[in-house]
Amino acid sequence: MATPDAPVTEFRTTRRVEFADTDLGGIVHFARFFVFMESAEHELMRSLGTSVHVTAEDGRVIGWPRVAARCEYLAPLRFGDVVEIVLRVARKGDRSMTYDAEFFAGGRLCARGRMSSVCCVLNDPRGLRPIPIPEPLASRLAEGPAAAGTGRG
Amino acid sequence: MATPDAPVTEFRTTRRVEFADTDLGGIVHFARFFVFMESAEHELMRSLGTSVHVTAEDGRVIGWPRVAARCEYLAPLRFGDVVEIVLRVARKGDRSMTYDAEFFAGGRLCARGRMSSVCCVLNDPRGLRPIPIPEPLASRLAEGPAAAGTGRG
Amino acid sequence: MATPDAPVTEFRTTRRVEFADTDLGGIVHFARFFVFMESAEHELMRSLGTSVHVTAEDGRVIGWPRVAARCEYLAPLRFGDVVEIVLRVARKGDRSMTYDAEFFAGGRLCARGRMSSVCCVLNDPRGLRPIPIPEPLASRLAEGPAAAGTGRG
Amino acid sequence: MATPDAPVTEFRTTRRVEFADTDLGGIVHFARFFVFMESAEHELMRSLGTSVHVTAEDGRVIGWPRVAARCEYLAPLRFGDVVEIVLRVARKGDRSMTYDAEFFAGGRLCARGRMSSVCCVLNDPRGLRPIPIPEPLASRLAEGPAAAGTGRG
Repeated sequence: MATPDAPVTEFRTTRRVEFADTDLGGIVHFARFFVFMESAEHELMRSLGTSVHVTAEDGRVIGWPRVAARCEYLAPLRFGDVVEIVLRVARKGDRSMTYDAEFFAGGRLCARGRMSSVCCVLNDPRGLRPIPIPEPLASRLAEGPAAAGTGRG
Repeated sequence: MATPDAPVTEFRTTRRVEFADTDLGGIVHFARFFVFMESAEHELMRSLGTSVHVTAEDGRVIGWPRVAARCEYLAPLRFGDVVEIVLRVARKGDRSMTYDAEFFAGGRLCARGRMSSVCCVLNDPRGLRPIPIPEPLASRLAEGPAAAGTGRG
Repeated sequence: MATPDAPVTEFRTTRRVEFADTDLGGIVHFARFFVFMESAEHELMRSLGTSVHVTAEDGRVIGWPRVAARCEYLAPLRFGDVVEIVLRVARKGDRSMTYDAEFFAGGRLCARGRMSSVCCVLNDPRGLRPIPIPEPLASRLAEGPAAAGTGRG
Repeated sequence: MATPDAPVTEFRTTRRVEFADTDLGGIVHFARFFVFMESAEHELMRSLGTSVHVTAEDGRVIGWPRVAARCEYLAPLRFGDVVEIVLRVARKGDRSMTYDAEFFAGGRLCARGRMSSVCCVLNDPRGLRPIPIPEPLASRLAEGPAAAGTGRG
């Protein structure tokens, strides 16, 4: 009998800071951290065999518009830095997901962020329409222990 | 006798959404709102005769590294939209500033954000060093009535 | 009797360099010049009452995928610079357009570029399909005298 | 006796298209190809133990401002595509470098570009000052056979 896949509560990835990520202050521009966070989320989805933007068999285009995003900056990231991004499922709602992200460079916590999205049909003529989280995300993603009692909401 | 300049608590500007601001979801990418917020802040500084990145007479380079940024997304912005951005002084510290931002398109509130920065010497060999907010910002910027009791911190 | 509108061979616009346009070299990142060029093109289209991305009455989505773009960099643009962009119709084909762009700051030519696009139906199930340039662009845009004999192709 | 390192004429790297690389046309924005090209160049430099932006022992900051960049677009890149970038030394001057780039996705050539840079001291009070290409680039990079007779200059 097949063992079901374990729930995923956390995902880790790395990327290197590119020249175009920096600004004249010599460090990574603060808006780029949101792109980094997002790409980690998309890699997580890809690792589960799905995508943030899919066209269902019935023609519906399903995506995840953001409802909120935030980041606290503790230490700068610089050109060439290898950044480890740790993404955790902070809250799993019926139709929404909230992830926490931590950014490390050289073992040092440089930033932490949070972002929330709602699963929606994007091409409904009546506008964005929230729908229940589809498979495989519904059954594979789970809130982790780290998400409890952080009081960071 | 000259009347001193009135304190500035709020700043308004507009910009048009560009093609490169959008993503394949057909709307403005969520990270771009932070660039929009920042540019409004920089326009505010410019309107007061200063800049976010200045070299003082003594050679110190003074800038404003971010410590936090956030945004809530209420309705999408689209290519070609004219966006009005209202920036308010939410908190004025001794060495830091927090601004609230609201984004309107067609009279509709589409997003609201907040960002905080600390005034620092950027080229001190010992690293980023916070300093008191310099003139003319210290005397010209002031918390507005809207900042009181918003409980959005 | 109404006088027909004069053909448009040139378009001028200005923008201010933003912080996020710069990189750690302290100057505008070279890829941003292409965004500046493109936005000037889109402003030109808007000034003629149309857009680079339109949905026709029959449901066809018509856009202008790039086929080529280039830029030569003569002097850096810096944060806060007001950049004047002069866009000229270099070549008007049956289904394509080529524009030349010049970038000035403080009266000095800082860069010049060129970009070509093909007018296409974007949502044809068989893929991108070139179509004749639609109105009002077909009758309003015209090659200017500056485009003759430049030999920059 | 140690064999000297072979000259490097070509470099290959891959990256995955991110959501923020796309625009509302549903494909990678044309300006992003220049960021991709540049990052391949920087990876090449990193593979040789140096960087595009270095501070020499004498305090000079040495960088590579662009003088020209171009790209031809043959087929669109899409969100999630794995892009192989092949970078070749097209011309090696005394103080400048020109690279050709090819972009492949799924084995198909999607774009080809070229970019040229001049090696300069960036922090000379008299302005950008070209200097001979420093080591290890001077002895390690070499024009490859593919660069001869392409007539694409």
